Amino acid sequence: MSDDRPVTEHPQDLRLDDLRREGLAPRHEPVEPQHDGIGRVELRFSPSGRDVRVPPGVAVFDAASWNGIAIDSTCGGHGTCRKCKVRLTSGTSPVTSHDRRTFSPTELEEGWRLACLVKAVTDLDVEVPPLMTRPKAATVGVGRQVILRPNVQKRHVTLEEPNLADQRTDLQRLCDAIDDFDLTADLHAIRRLPNVLRDNDFDVTAVIIDDVLIDVEAGDTTERSVGVAIDLGTTTVVATLLDLATGTPLAVASMLNQQQPFGADVITRISATMMDPAALERLRDLARQTLQDLIGEVCDEAGVPLTEVLEIAVAGNATMTALLLGIDPEPLGVAPFIQSSAGWPPLLAAEVGLRAHPRARVYVFPALGAYVGGDIVAGILAAGMDRDKRCRLFIDVGTNCEIVLSDGDRIVSTAAPAGPAFEGGAIRCGMRAADGAIEVVRITGEHDVELQVIGDVEARGLCGSGLVDAVAELVRVGILDASGRFIPEEDAARRFPALAPRLTKVGEERVFLLTAPPSAGEASAPTVNDDAVYLSQRDVRELQFGKAAISTGWTLLLEELGIEGRDVQQVLLAGSFGSYLSPASAVRIGLVPKLPVLRIVSAGNVAGEGAKIALLSSRERAGADALLEEVSYVELSDRADFNDRFVEQLAFPT
Amino acid sequence: MSDDRPVTEHPQDLRLDDLRREGLAPRHEPVEPQHDGIGRVELRFSPSGRDVRVPPGVAVFDAASWNGIAIDSTCGGHGTCRKCKVRLTSGTSPVTSHDRRTFSPTELEEGWRLACLVKAVTDLDVEVPPLMTRPKAATVGVGRQVILRPNVQKRHVTLEEPNLADQRTDLQRLCDAIDDFDLTADLHAIRRLPNVLRDNDFDVTAVIIDDVLIDVEAGDTTERSVGVAIDLGTTTVVATLLDLATGTPLAVASMLNQQQPFGADVITRISATMMDPAALERLRDLARQTLQDLIGEVCDEAGVPLTEVLEIAVAGNATMTALLLGIDPEPLGVAPFIQSSAGWPPLLAAEVGLRAHPRARVYVFPALGAYVGGDIVAGILAAGMDRDKRCRLFIDVGTNCEIVLSDGDRIVSTAAPAGPAFEGGAIRCGMRAADGAIEVVRITGEHDVELQVIGDVEARGLCGSGLVDAVAELVRVGILDASGRFIPEEDAARRFPALAPRLTKVGEERVFLLTAPPSAGEASAPTVNDDAVYLSQRDVRELQFGKAAISTGWTLLLEELGIEGRDVQQVLLAGSFGSYLSPASAVRIGLVPKLPVLRIVSAGNVAGEGAKIALLSSRERAGADALLEEVSYVELSDRADFNDRFVEQLAFPT
Repeated sequence: MSDDRPVTEHPQDLRLDDLRREGLAPRHEPVEPQHDGIGRVELRFSPSGRDVRVPPGVAVFDAASWNGIAIDSTCGGHGTCRKCKVRLTSGTSPVTSHDRRTFSPTELEEGWRLACLVKAVTDLDVEVPPLMTRPKAATVGVGRQVILRPNVQKRHVTLEEPNLADQRTDLQRLCDAIDDFDLTADLHAIRRLPNVLRDNDFDVTAVIIDDVLIDVEAGDTTERSVGVAIDLGTTTVVATLLDLATGTPLAVASMLNQQQPFGADVITRISATMMDPAALERLRDLARQTLQDLIGEVCDEAGVPLTEVLEIAVAGNATMTALLLGIDPEPLGVAPFIQSSAGWPPLLAAEVGLRAHPRARVYVFPALGAYVGGDIVAGILAAGMDRDKRCRLFIDVGTNCEIVLSDGDRIVSTAAPAGPAFEGGAIRCGMRAADGAIEVVRITGEHDVELQVIGDVEARGLCGSGLVDAVAELVRVGILDASGRFIPEEDAARRFPALAPRLTKVGEERVFLLTAPPSAGEASAPTVNDDAVYLSQRDVRELQFGKAAISTGWTLLLEELGIEGRDVQQVLLAGSFGSYLSPASAVRIGLVPKLPVLRIVSAGNVAGEGAKIALLSSRERAGADALLEEVSYVELSDRADFNDRFVEQLAFPT
Repeated sequence: MSDDRPVTEHPQDLRLDDLRREGLAPRHEPVEPQHDGIGRVELRFSPSGRDVRVPPGVAVFDAASWNGIAIDSTCGGHGTCRKCKVRLTSGTSPVTSHDRRTFSPTELEEGWRLACLVKAVTDLDVEVPPLMTRPKAATVGVGRQVILRPNVQKRHVTLEEPNLADQRTDLQRLCDAIDDFDLTADLHAIRRLPNVLRDNDFDVTAVIIDDVLIDVEAGDTTERSVGVAIDLGTTTVVATLLDLATGTPLAVASMLNQQQPFGADVITRISATMMDPAALERLRDLARQTLQDLIGEVCDEAGVPLTEVLEIAVAGNATMTALLLGIDPEPLGVAPFIQSSAGWPPLLAAEVGLRAHPRARVYVFPALGAYVGGDIVAGILAAGMDRDKRCRLFIDVGTNCEIVLSDGDRIVSTAAPAGPAFEGGAIRCGMRAADGAIEVVRITGEHDVELQVIGDVEARGLCGSGLVDAVAELVRVGILDASGRFIPEEDAARRFPALAPRLTKVGEERVFLLTAPPSAGEASAPTVNDDAVYLSQRDVRELQFGKAAISTGWTLLLEELGIEGRDVQQVLLAGSFGSYLSPASAVRIGLVPKLPVLRIVSAGNVAGEGAKIALLSSRERAGADALLEEVSYVELSDRADFNDRFVEQLAFPT
């Protein structure tokens, strides 16, 4: 695979100083990867006790942040603030020049490193010291440093008491003391004012959202200010409780979207509402309940009362958003695929049916189109695609695959119907990425098949990343040809004697056994054990259809901007599924342009990260809303040449 | 009384042309009044069948408008549009030059008149033709012509249907078709959009409040648009259902404020909340229920579904407003008399607890001070005090009396604690203005005592206007001296033999019998019948205290603006009580400055009229909100000279 990883970076990578000025430089001192771009590493954080599995190459700081583990930082992960100190108590990472300027030789020996510079390529135990600073900025998303200016603000004031010569109203008195807002007040706050002021000698904290006074609290509560960032996925929903004053994640929780019984993907759920008028209300309630359960869970974990949650940011695709808000999704599901609205008014949590502070707000990300939803807008925000001067390609892989391309100036987006293969659907042994799923497949030089199974249990099936690995590895060694066909058995027996016995049939269909292979001496067409996990010829075809749809999508976007695949400086594999793909396998099957594997970056749960950014910075949130004007949407379904281009993309790259 | 009514108008009255340019000229061609400024006239409107009793001198057009009877008009009651044609089928009114230009001699003979020019001085039967025009302006308040530009707007649109080449969102498509608003949409409207558009071939009506799309309706509903104007009084609550598209009142209803059991005035209700923490919620609910009952009643009467009520405007004093909104009123009731807020955010009816359209709004008038509330701001709006160049004095008489003075440039206001006498409280035979109450007292040249009793039944008691009349008449004839004492019996017997037998005692207290007088031949101190209605010496004192508080208030305001009582060109007697006072009696007892009786005008229920104006014109509403900056509030309770001034004002004018 060395030809996939040239040592010389692309010339455009050299504009680092520009990027640094933008606060967007890629991490310093690229460490020569000690990995082949396939598989997982496990990070065990203490004292939180949280175990995290990430694709190799992810910065420890990012992995911690994405999982709600707070590490000091004020510079945005560029190694300059030297605050993100952690100790590697098991496993190690190269010492960078920044580490050398930060730590004594003894400390380096003890495993101290700056977390933003540790690219995890082996399993690590990471000890995180308690937070020392009250940050002015937070590092979130794909290495974004966000200045903390939450939409939720608190101000502690001590007011003069009224008298006959100063009969200002309670509200006027409070507003006069807060000069950095042009405040209005909602009725809830006005109701609370007379008593809270008089019961506390006029020493109170104003709670302000969007220039609106929503509450007034006794004494100084400025250090208590939390919000919840929600990644509302079709399959999985993730909630992060954030300390809005510091940007610190306080707790993370996730669960399956409770709408699952209505279907695995958006189309089945839309269909449900078309067949049964009562289904919309039921789906709405299930979405609401999923969010409420998660909000309750993160609040419990952090010991924060539900009524202190002041804002909730939700990033979801257009269908999930419509269902949460109780909007009939039917027009999203049938041509010409129309949304009711792209953006949303300021919403009260109560209006959405969520219990939190009585006047808590809900920010819902706007959508670029029926199939490039709020989750993608959040992802663009988290990736900083609207402010990065590099040419970057963002791919959120899933049943519906969203693709965004920026040439550093213009941004274009589209949606490609990739089908369910990447999520383990329509695959003979397919399953969700849960315990028992093969998530990594590697074929060694000796033609051993090495598997990584989630939960380290017996393999029960194949999830999307395992499927991609399996196909990529079989293409690499030559068991699958470029057209996606298993090579004839006799060729296999001749060229790959160690692998050939795995090539057999289930019924009439040719399959490659991933587990329970017959020994080399057995008959060439053994009976396949019921428990066996295998890859079938049709599975390969399904994957080909999916990846062809995706690569057709980014090929057309590249043409739209008049650039070549090799010009792309960074590919972000995003989403709860895409960010677990092995970069090398993605290149190998042609899911992404043929680029050095270092340029293929797992972006993590960017929807959730975008939601965090929206909570932490009203300026960034305004930037997300502005994306509706800045990003062009390219509709594929009415392109006359789509089918031809799709067929061209079916083969694997040679 | 001829000295009270000089024929020459004050020189400042001559600036008519200026006023006409402002649309504020007093009505043309003052008709020499055929009345003495005391009493009531009865107007019977057909075909509505509504009977209305008003003080003499009120324009028939105004009396109709205040009582929800629609008469065509586009000019604001200045006799120029010649649309407000009515026929007097019983009683008559002088023919003006405008009438002559409008009607044929035969029509004049048949009783046709322009309603805005008929000052009712005798009982009249008035036939009102059906409405002919769709007006662009409405005449409301004290002769105010208000251009119709309601906060609630509807727009009928027929949209192009979407296709793959035009994937604009439903909301965008609608907004693009409505170019006179910079629209946002609330969630309720967005929820309705997909289905209402598609079920009606994209032919719909947008419902807009405050630049916010709140709903979308099938087909063209632009002619269905209603709101409710509420005068939220401490005693009585009045609701008017208004057609917002035409300014036409559709129905009027009133009832006692259901908070009555908690006390007759604001202080007793505030006290109730101080003694029992549960009382606030109970009072809030009673206010809400009173409004809901009235809204239901006017909707029923007009055959309009409750869910079509789009906006509700509420004018109430600061305490009634606080109780309706669930705000603790205690700080209003104790020095230094502090409001929680002067103005209110845009409120949803649901937030106030009122059932109407699910996204109906409630506009609540702001207050100038704890005792110059939203009812007075509405009154100032209805009277046009902020745009009239005349020097005008506005007095809303009640337990708390609000006084506003304008010199045509500056406006000042204050509140005077008049006590309960004007509302029939603390008066021996006092009662509310209900059936059986003496509302008019007149002493004839032959010293007969003539009474008008509400409901034309046996007199049971004395309401405020009857009290004022009784005292004024007794002062005029000389039974009461200027200090407020009944003259000695021997003087009475000598000077007023016809009245003297009425002057007797109840217990130790001297009284004047209004009913059941002994015949002249009886003993001089007869036994007073239990059913008798009389005026006692202490009653006179109560009234003196009340009127002294009021006249001290306007005296201090006159001083504040450096003007004399005689400079006042118009006195508006306002409020459900004040507007029923006999102007001549008000002058006689010194409740108002000594002025020609023609300048003392009953302004009607100006709070309710202001609420109507706020519904019909968002510009006027903004004007009401601006009054908070434009009107100065003068606090009397901390003035060192208040008591001295008060004592000076106790005597009746000589």
